[in-house]
Amino acid sequence: MLNFNPGPSQLYFTVEQHMKKAFKEGIPSLSHRSKVFEKIYQQATENLKTLLDLPNGYEIYYLASATEIWERILQNLVENNSTHLVNGAFSKRFYETALDLNKKPTLLKVEDGHGFDNQTIANDTELVAITQNETSTGASLPIEFINKLAENNSDALMVVDAVSSMPYPQFNYDKIDSVFFSVQKGFGLPAGLGVWIVNEKCLAKAEYLLSKGISTGSYHSLKSLRTHGLKNQTPETPNVLSLYLLARVTTDMLERGITNIRRETEYKATLLYHLLHRHPLMKSFVKEKQFQSKTVIVADCGENVNKISEALLEKGIKPGAGYGAYKSNHLRFANFPTHSKEQFELLVDTLEALV
Amino acid sequence: MLNFNPGPSQLYFTVEQHMKKAFKEGIPSLSHRSKVFEKIYQQATENLKTLLDLPNGYEIYYLASATEIWERILQNLVENNSTHLVNGAFSKRFYETALDLNKKPTLLKVEDGHGFDNQTIANDTELVAITQNETSTGASLPIEFINKLAENNSDALMVVDAVSSMPYPQFNYDKIDSVFFSVQKGFGLPAGLGVWIVNEKCLAKAEYLLSKGISTGSYHSLKSLRTHGLKNQTPETPNVLSLYLLARVTTDMLERGITNIRRETEYKATLLYHLLHRHPLMKSFVKEKQFQSKTVIVADCGENVNKISEALLEKGIKPGAGYGAYKSNHLRFANFPTHSKEQFELLVDTLEALV
Repeated sequence: MLNFNPGPSQLYFTVEQHMKKAFKEGIPSLSHRSKVFEKIYQQATENLKTLLDLPNGYEIYYLASATEIWERILQNLVENNSTHLVNGAFSKRFYETALDLNKKPTLLKVEDGHGFDNQTIANDTELVAITQNETSTGASLPIEFINKLAENNSDALMVVDAVSSMPYPQFNYDKIDSVFFSVQKGFGLPAGLGVWIVNEKCLAKAEYLLSKGISTGSYHSLKSLRTHGLKNQTPETPNVLSLYLLARVTTDMLERGITNIRRETEYKATLLYHLLHRHPLMKSFVKEKQFQSKTVIVADCGENVNKISEALLEKGIKPGAGYGAYKSNHLRFANFPTHSKEQFELLVDTLEALV
Repeated sequence: MLNFNPGPSQLYFTVEQHMKKAFKEGIPSLSHRSKVFEKIYQQATENLKTLLDLPNGYEIYYLASATEIWERILQNLVENNSTHLVNGAFSKRFYETALDLNKKPTLLKVEDGHGFDNQTIANDTELVAITQNETSTGASLPIEFINKLAENNSDALMVVDAVSSMPYPQFNYDKIDSVFFSVQKGFGLPAGLGVWIVNEKCLAKAEYLLSKGISTGSYHSLKSLRTHGLKNQTPETPNVLSLYLLARVTTDMLERGITNIRRETEYKATLLYHLLHRHPLMKSFVKEKQFQSKTVIVADCGENVNKISEALLEKGIKPGAGYGAYKSNHLRFANFPTHSKEQFELLVDTLEALV
C-alpha cells in the first residue's frame, strides 16, 4: 500500500534495511552512556546541521515528540507572554500549551487554511510562535513572511514549528531562534522522537529564567539538555533505536542531496496542485498560492471524499484523512522525501481518471 | 554476546521476531488515531493489568521514560512537600527532580546499598517516594517494609519506582498509589517508553491541584493522559512501535506465566548470591540479605573488576559496569525474565572457574 498519510508517514525507503542492521549491531540494547551511542548522537547532529545548513551557534536536542517540545519551549523561553499565530489545529494546540502552563499567551487568529498579513505584535511579547506548516489544513507560511515578521519583532524570540515540512524549507536561520520537528513526517521514521534546534539566545533566556528562580523543568530543561548534549548524550535513556535510524536516514539524504530533495518536492507538489486546479470533484483547500504547502497538500473534496478515497484504495493508494472536523470533506496528501516522482504520478493519474 | 547490563538490557528473546512482524503489518507507519492502534494500546494495558494482578481502579499510562515519570509525578501529585527515601543515585535523582520543579522535598538518606529502618516521616508530607530497586547499587526494599511504611503514612500518596524490578515484585497494590517502570529493563524492549500506574487518589490529587490554579503540565498532565487513555489513545504521537512490542512481549510473558517468571528469577538470584558469598575475588555489595535485589545483583569486586570483566568477555558474557563512582570496583548483573537459567548457570560457572 502506497501511503500518503501526513504522519506517521510512509517510512523512508531505507528504514527497514537500517532496522535489520540495527538488530545485528545490538543497537536495541545499546547503553546510552556508551561511546557507540555518543557516536550515533554526534552523527545525527552533524548530519542535520549539514542537511539544514545550520549556522554556528545552533544546537540540536532530542526529545520524545514535537508535542513535548511545545511544552519545553514555553517552560524554557517564556516568563509571561508568548504570541501565537494560529491558523489551524496544531498552532492552536501550541497556544493552548501556554495556557496549560499558566503563561499569558496572546492569540492572533485567522481562519483555517489562511495565511497572515502584517500582524501587529505587542512590544512586550517574549516569543513569537508560528506554525510554518499547518498539518491540519495544508497552509504554509512563506519564508519571506517569517523573515519580515522576525525583522519587525527583533526583541522577541522567533520560534518555528516545522513539524511536517522539514527538511524542505530553506530558512534564514539568522532570522529565527528555534525550529523543531518530529521524525515521523518528512524524515519517514517510526514515531517517538522530536528534534529541537535552538540558538544561543534561547540558552540565555533559559538561564535568565533560572536566575529569577523560575523552574524550567527538570531532565529536559534546556540547561540539562545542554549539559548532556555537550557530551553527545541525552539526560534520560532515550529512544536509542530512533536516533540510530535518524543518523542513518540523514546520511542517505545527504548522499541524495538536499537540492535534489527540494527540487523533487516542488515538482511533485506542482503536479498535484495543477490537478486540483482543474479537477471537477476536488480543489485545494488553501486558496492563495503563496500559502499552499509543498509538503502537506490538502484537497477539499466536498461530498466526494468517500468516492475518491475508495477509488484510490482500489489502486493501492492510501490518502490521509481530513483532520478533525474536516474528516468528512478533506483528504490530505503528504509530499515527503520518501514519496517518489513515480508514486506522485501514479496518484495524479489515478485521480485524473476519476473524472 | 550474552548481555547482563541492567539496562538497556538484553532484549526479550522474542523481540526480534515481533519487530519483523511489525514491519510486515505496517506498524511503524500506523496512525496513533486508528482503531488498530487503539487495539494495541488496549492489549498492552490489559496484559499488564493481568500480569501484575492490578486491582480495579488502577490506570496505566504510557510516557517516554521513567525519568519523565519522575517529573510528571511531582507536577501532578505534589503541591509542596514530597519525602524521598534515598539510598543510591536514582532515588537521589527523583529527589532532585522535585528541587528542579521548585517543590519543597524532604530527603531521608541512608548510605548506598543500605535499606531503611522505621523512618519517621513528617505528617504534612503529601507523597512518599521510594525506589524499590536501586539500579545503581542493587539495594531493594522488601514488600513488607513498603506495606508498613504505607500503613504508617496513610494520608500521603505512596509512590514506588520499580524501574528495574518489574514484573518481578508482587506488590500489595492496596497499599500503594502509584508504581512506574521503563520497558528496557525487565521487559527486555528497546528503550523509549515509560509505564505509569496510578490509582484514583492520584487522579483526584491532580484534579485538586488544577482546581487551585496550579499547573500540572500540558499534554502529559494526568488529566490529559486520562482523557486520551479512556479512548485507548495517547495525547501525542507516541512511540507506537514500542507500545506494539510491549503488547506482544507481555502476551508472551502471560503464556509463560508470571509465577514461573518469578520462580526462575529467585532461582537465578540464589545461584549468583551463593557464588558471591563464597567467591574470593568478589562479594555482594548489599550486605543485608533482606535488601539484596533479586533483579539487579551488584558485585563488589575491589581491584579485580578488570580481571573478572575480561574473563567474562572472553566467554562471550558482558557484565554491566558499576554505576557512576563505582565503575572501578563494581560489576552489575541483571536478572531479568529474558535471562535463562542456563545463561545464569554459565555466568556462575565462568565466575567460579576464575578462582
